[in-house]
Amino acid sequence: MVAQESALQSLQRWVPGLNLGQDTICMEFAGSPSVCVGFLRVLPFPPTSQKHALSTNSNGFVHVKNPHLDLLPEDILYHFDLGTKTHDLPSMFGDVKFVCVGGSPNRMREFARFMHKELGLEGDGNNITDICAGTDRYSMYKSGPVLSISHGMGIPSISIMLHELIKLLHHAKSRDVTIIRIGTSGGIGIRPGTVVITDIAVDAFFRPQFEQVILDKVVVRNTELHQELAENLLRCSNEINDFPTIIGHTMCTYDFYEGQGRLDGALCSFSKEEKFEYLQKAYGAGVRNIEMESSVFAAMCHLCGLKAAVVCVTLLDRLQGDQITESHAVLAEYQKRPQKLIAKFIRKQLSLCT
Amino acid sequence: MVAQESALQSLQRWVPGLNLGQDTICMEFAGSPSVCVGFLRVLPFPPTSQKHALSTNSNGFVHVKNPHLDLLPEDILYHFDLGTKTHDLPSMFGDVKFVCVGGSPNRMREFARFMHKELGLEGDGNNITDICAGTDRYSMYKSGPVLSISHGMGIPSISIMLHELIKLLHHAKSRDVTIIRIGTSGGIGIRPGTVVITDIAVDAFFRPQFEQVILDKVVVRNTELHQELAENLLRCSNEINDFPTIIGHTMCTYDFYEGQGRLDGALCSFSKEEKFEYLQKAYGAGVRNIEMESSVFAAMCHLCGLKAAVVCVTLLDRLQGDQITESHAVLAEYQKRPQKLIAKFIRKQLSLCT
Repeated sequence: MVAQESALQSLQRWVPGLNLGQDTICMEFAGSPSVCVGFLRVLPFPPTSQKHALSTNSNGFVHVKNPHLDLLPEDILYHFDLGTKTHDLPSMFGDVKFVCVGGSPNRMREFARFMHKELGLEGDGNNITDICAGTDRYSMYKSGPVLSISHGMGIPSISIMLHELIKLLHHAKSRDVTIIRIGTSGGIGIRPGTVVITDIAVDAFFRPQFEQVILDKVVVRNTELHQELAENLLRCSNEINDFPTIIGHTMCTYDFYEGQGRLDGALCSFSKEEKFEYLQKAYGAGVRNIEMESSVFAAMCHLCGLKAAVVCVTLLDRLQGDQITESHAVLAEYQKRPQKLIAKFIRKQLSLCT
Repeated sequence: MVAQESALQSLQRWVPGLNLGQDTICMEFAGSPSVCVGFLRVLPFPPTSQKHALSTNSNGFVHVKNPHLDLLPEDILYHFDLGTKTHDLPSMFGDVKFVCVGGSPNRMREFARFMHKELGLEGDGNNITDICAGTDRYSMYKSGPVLSISHGMGIPSISIMLHELIKLLHHAKSRDVTIIRIGTSGGIGIRPGTVVITDIAVDAFFRPQFEQVILDKVVVRNTELHQELAENLLRCSNEINDFPTIIGHTMCTYDFYEGQGRLDGALCSFSKEEKFEYLQKAYGAGVRNIEMESSVFAAMCHLCGLKAAVVCVTLLDRLQGDQITESHAVLAEYQKRPQKLIAKFIRKQLSLCT
């Protein structure tokens, strides 16, 4: 331990990019208390959920893991423009069973209308209104038990949405909720238009983890998605038999250009060969697509007892190029694929089809 | 060097959160070639700009630092729904002198209308149309030489926008462009409604740097903003004399809840006391406000020869609480403050006022 401490301190001196500090690197292992690597220290954070513990979760409620919340006289979900005093959240959201999230507000409105029809709800669904109309940070639509929410682009944007969504579902006393991110992505070594169901999200170094900065510490979180749900979704897609669908690792990056090895950004300091070497290494590590939200989505859902899946269509094969050049019509059809798959899944879950 | 290498390797074995790899930590120093800390190695990246080199920049064009761009037959700015073959970028944007960016699309539309009036342009400005209407990722409006663009929330979201904006300005051959982020933030130890002009962006560990992952390496970038521009803006605010304005450090985080020490997220593993200790430490390090975009904004603008400023109003004092509880009317007035300040600055630059 002394040797480790001294190695840490010596590293810190000459790697300004690190500045580790005391107790900086912490790990949250599934099913064990959080411990800090470096200086072993138990955090006040409760044990994270067991793998597949969700299926044995006795009450099915969404967990918030924050002892301070109960002390708040009112909880304002600022980025949704909703609150516990201004809105009757249990009556608005108590019946939610499926939450579908995606980057683009327009796409999520389209999805809500599509689900309205697929579920055979009254009316044509074109009058569905944005529940978050008081803000332009996110859009939210409800079609029966299905909530559709936009989350913008990137980890920080989806993370704000997830904090407020998880609190919303908690305040609403929603039970047995399944959450699915339906998005777009870049593929690696697979045909454009292929739908990838994520088994685990990995970072830019192909590590199956998400690093969350909490105060001045880095906590490492589990990024596994729900295995049974992923397999169930793959079966649904095989039944549709309309487009290729696979299960694979998804790489989640903080950046679309330099961070994904693109040669067409405003900044690029690497060669074509270095780019290919990196993407081939990703392929070898099991990565089949790249996007920008899956890791924090997996980590937060895992911690809060939400059965979660990530289902993204690939708009291009990054081994063939960087620019998205397909026609608008082709891209629009690709983007419908995860929606079709999820609609089939939800209808089956609700016994509206076989 | 051998000792350092062995310390790195031993660290890597027992700190799964690090996985440094060879050549992982790189530094880009202002005015010197990029070097890797750990294994000294010159990257193919060109030297970054000197401090204040912008003022001596001879042609005033926006730099892209990507040798591959010239080889593209067409550059599709996907998230703007613009392109070099489909749009005449020089005639659309060649006269741009000021770019103002902010998170919310509605706020940036309001700002464009406001600038339309402030600049005395023809018409009432209410018919200004979204140049990026073909996509809902970003919104863009033009009022004479002023471009207003929304960037969503968080580093990844603004970074995509900046890559495409910098390429757009490059293709358009715009010259002598000043770019200003006008946003909202949480204050530390200052009165809500105070406008903070950033001198330097720091990360969650109070380090004046931005870490960019490029392929499997971490490159550290300079996050200084343009000092003369900041001072100029402060003088403008003193002339308005309508609201408190200061120059200070801005902390830029990847997360709004745990990453900013909030006690009201879905997840919180720290005590009230630990939160205060962290925020006090930030205050002691010169941090006066916290937001989620300034570091990558400063780093990218610095590298590409854009004179850049960050001007954010504070919506609350984080030492007093975490929830944004002010009335809609008060918040709306606060959000107008950076806009008023920038309008004054632009009018002065264009000699429309003294």
